[in-house]
Amino acid sequence: MYKLVLIRHGESTWNLENRFTGWTDVDLTDTGVEQAKNAGRLLKAEGYDFDLAFTSMLKRATRTLWHTLDEMDRTWLPVEHSWRLNERHYGGLQGLNKADMAKQYGEAQVLQWRRSYDVPPPALEATDPRSERGDRRYAELQPEQIPLTECLKDTVARVVPFWNDALAPAILAGKRVVLAAHGNSIRALIKYLDNIADDAIVGVNVPNGIPLVYELDANLKPIRSYYLGDAEAAAKAAAAVAAQGKA
Amino acid sequence: MYKLVLIRHGESTWNLENRFTGWTDVDLTDTGVEQAKNAGRLLKAEGYDFDLAFTSMLKRATRTLWHTLDEMDRTWLPVEHSWRLNERHYGGLQGLNKADMAKQYGEAQVLQWRRSYDVPPPALEATDPRSERGDRRYAELQPEQIPLTECLKDTVARVVPFWNDALAPAILAGKRVVLAAHGNSIRALIKYLDNIADDAIVGVNVPNGIPLVYELDANLKPIRSYYLGDAEAAAKAAAAVAAQGKA
Repeated sequence: MYKLVLIRHGESTWNLENRFTGWTDVDLTDTGVEQAKNAGRLLKAEGYDFDLAFTSMLKRATRTLWHTLDEMDRTWLPVEHSWRLNERHYGGLQGLNKADMAKQYGEAQVLQWRRSYDVPPPALEATDPRSERGDRRYAELQPEQIPLTECLKDTVARVVPFWNDALAPAILAGKRVVLAAHGNSIRALIKYLDNIADDAIVGVNVPNGIPLVYELDANLKPIRSYYLGDAEAAAKAAAAVAAQGKA
Repeated sequence: MYKLVLIRHGESTWNLENRFTGWTDVDLTDTGVEQAKNAGRLLKAEGYDFDLAFTSMLKRATRTLWHTLDEMDRTWLPVEHSWRLNERHYGGLQGLNKADMAKQYGEAQVLQWRRSYDVPPPALEATDPRSERGDRRYAELQPEQIPLTECLKDTVARVVPFWNDALAPAILAGKRVVLAAHGNSIRALIKYLDNIADDAIVGVNVPNGIPLVYELDANLKPIRSYYLGDAEAAAKAAAAVAAQGKA
């Protein structure tokens, strides 16, 4: 049996301000740092250890990973960054307040933007200063590979190849893997691993900074998955994520 | 012309306590963290940027690199860890106070232990709890590759292959490289790059947390090298390093 541990980054400044973040590279709040350290302490206390770590190109996930590894005395582990683990790109909504948008466009519209499986929010213009096209951190990509908006379906389409090409081979090679990423890149992975229907994934919310453990069989099919630590606290935190789009 | 930037980690808890550290995995002090951040700020202010970062397996170097990259908004850069960049192994001296040892054995003996090119300090027993043999962070090495003591000549012998196999190819491929490591692994590199005689390297001291820039020609031969920022402060800090073995 294999295990894979997924961690959504700790609270970010824009989580706190209830703004759509996407690929914008905002930092953790002090609470977010504490959540990340707690994740590391919890993993250590429960006897977890790792050989290899993956994270996105964004600092809220990277820093969450660093704090987690630090608490586990594993600052020396190899870390691989990939844009494929980045948050879903929120297009023209990036930077805007979720509750303001709910007042302006209605909660139903915001829920669709946040949780529709295949309808993306309005796209950024490629020339919008918020666009990541031209950012040298993505220089290895073709410009058109850098999204201007994404629905979750688009995120799944870029996360699944990373599962197939990087995560699954590492796990099958016996590496104990930890991955620090984002609400929607983790939901994309959950959808794929648990084979969740397009219209059911809307109900899945991932709380910040609580390690999510997948136990996988020899074919990497999930046997079960669970949040480490206080189950009630995890459920409450997930419910809070679900409520973010209310006016 | 190529550039390579070397950074000795910020002040560590055992630098502060004036103890021989070697491969012992001690942390940075608050001053050390501040030095690391300053290194990043200085590099950014001077217009430096990087594509690839190298560090050792030890947290004082790793954390120095992280703080440096953080200040440069480059937390997403690939980072490679190698035991070959670890500090010189200080054998049986690891953990002992440099001034105490000078009182007990004389300053000449301590200077020899610290700065002799080819006489290593007394070796650790492989079964000594201070030995890193059995530490899973070095699991990819044969036990006999994990030193029980080293003189600088031994450190040079493991650093030069890393130059040849990892650093030089990356630089020649056009990658802008930053390396965060240790007093003696950086001295080993300096000795090799500047072709310094065995009996002259004793006079070379590397201050904590000040970026050392090498300008290299097309064959990676040094054109010149210099510390960034206040030259007088760098010279003073290097002199303080030299004075650590006094009783």
